[in-house]
Amino acid sequence: MRCRKCGQAASINMHQHRLSLCKNHYNEWFIAYTKKTIEKYHLLKNGEKALVAVSGGKDSLVLWDVLNQLGYYTEGLYINLGINEVFPYSDRSQDYAQVFADKNKLNLRIFDVRAELGRDISNLVKQSQYGKKRPCSVCGIIKRHILNSVTRQHEFQIIATGHNLDDEVAVLFSNNLNWNLEQLSRQTPRLPETFDFARKIKPLCRSYERETSAYALLNGIEYIEEECPFSIGSKTNNIKIWFNQLEKDQPGIKFAYFTQFLAQKKAGFLSGVENLPIELHQCPKCGQPTSSEEFCAFCKLLDD
Amino acid sequence: MRCRKCGQAASINMHQHRLSLCKNHYNEWFIAYTKKTIEKYHLLKNGEKALVAVSGGKDSLVLWDVLNQLGYYTEGLYINLGINEVFPYSDRSQDYAQVFADKNKLNLRIFDVRAELGRDISNLVKQSQYGKKRPCSVCGIIKRHILNSVTRQHEFQIIATGHNLDDEVAVLFSNNLNWNLEQLSRQTPRLPETFDFARKIKPLCRSYERETSAYALLNGIEYIEEECPFSIGSKTNNIKIWFNQLEKDQPGIKFAYFTQFLAQKKAGFLSGVENLPIELHQCPKCGQPTSSEEFCAFCKLLDD
Repeated sequence: MRCRKCGQAASINMHQHRLSLCKNHYNEWFIAYTKKTIEKYHLLKNGEKALVAVSGGKDSLVLWDVLNQLGYYTEGLYINLGINEVFPYSDRSQDYAQVFADKNKLNLRIFDVRAELGRDISNLVKQSQYGKKRPCSVCGIIKRHILNSVTRQHEFQIIATGHNLDDEVAVLFSNNLNWNLEQLSRQTPRLPETFDFARKIKPLCRSYERETSAYALLNGIEYIEEECPFSIGSKTNNIKIWFNQLEKDQPGIKFAYFTQFLAQKKAGFLSGVENLPIELHQCPKCGQPTSSEEFCAFCKLLDD
Repeated sequence: MRCRKCGQAASINMHQHRLSLCKNHYNEWFIAYTKKTIEKYHLLKNGEKALVAVSGGKDSLVLWDVLNQLGYYTEGLYINLGINEVFPYSDRSQDYAQVFADKNKLNLRIFDVRAELGRDISNLVKQSQYGKKRPCSVCGIIKRHILNSVTRQHEFQIIATGHNLDDEVAVLFSNNLNWNLEQLSRQTPRLPETFDFARKIKPLCRSYERETSAYALLNGIEYIEEECPFSIGSKTNNIKIWFNQLEKDQPGIKFAYFTQFLAQKKAGFLSGVENLPIELHQCPKCGQPTSSEEFCAFCKLLDD
């Protein structure tokens, strides 16, 4: 297996792109590819101030590294959710994020949920299970709220998250199974600004998880390898395992499934539901956007 | 496990419908359910003359039985493709079809491919592999052509096929993966008449394979249990295995995936492509409908 660019021994063979590359050419390719994604979906411009949502996992650290290499202004935000029951998952993840930031002389902001909200994530999850919400869903509500409030407070225009192609495929398929057209129409690499809240972008949405792993490995980016203990056995994880089998039989199928969906959406096949006015209100308590006519999900959660 | 209707021991428990039934009530339910599918999609009216495409497998024999029980005028057509290499698959299948027809005093027509076309299916498949067509695709071309010509010759208004929910889900997902909207828009339980060729209907499209199996078993309908030797390892079969895993985690998901798709299609989400004029021509050689501007796929195949 030889690098297509220089003929030296390849470090990675990507069946999905029919492409083998050595370490140096892989890095070059991965960065240029991410740049292309940014341009294709108009995610980010030079001069815009981006906050990278850093989890300590490979995807968000790789994203931060690549945005930095591409010369964008970035800071990181690590939200410590206090998931330290089985093992110190949150604290270890924070260490990885901090080591990366220090090594690259980047600014990492920390939001400690327990210290700031006076509540523990385990406590919130346990309580919310009575309300039939799953842990990942509770966690999503909290992280979305904190990201919004930090970006507004510090005047970031952009929130960049590390969702990769495998993540996007799992969400897409999950909505696809019920043909929920409204939910389908909302899936996008670029969620525009709402009120004075930042635009949300996913520059790695066209990159396989395997590709972000390879980039981390080849560049010595250390990250937390364990899955979040709350996420194990989740529906999303099962869909990912399932699509990995399919990808083995048909290399490139995840890429086709996601990018063809976006292309058809752009061509207007969901225009009937996309044009529906989305009724967003400002939560009377925190001021953040919500589709609820009362308090937003976050304020309701904390009120329970 | 008790029958919901009479409280006696249940013969089948359908998680997907949250319903357990004894043998008698299952039969009653299955027949009424098929009737409902027929009415829901306007498939068939009393007095119409229907040709059932019988393969000797459970689905088509169950379909024939139910249509007969419901009082529709039916005859069967068995196409003997001469797949007798590994074991006498086609001849055995024909025997099952004939035994069923005799037992129920129904008329079974036989079309013997080797005798009528002077060509062997293995020969056609082997030859066509050079043209990069897969066996199932070659077989589909031949069967479609023969069904069309027999229905026209004997003035049937309807061709009824035994495609079950699992079959429909596999086809849907296969087109869904590439978001091929035109192909998606063509999937329907009721393909209308073209020129003077019969309407094609799928009355079992809302029935799980497990349900047709149960009906066959409970009613002593004997059928060929082996898979077609050409179909083993096909993409469609892999998708079915995959969806069976998903169904275990989320009972009813196959039903939701297929019927929600039809409901959204009815509501118009594919109207942009559905309204495209489908350019169908009559093949200058056999007169059957084809999207090709030259000879149809069948005539091309036999000309090779």
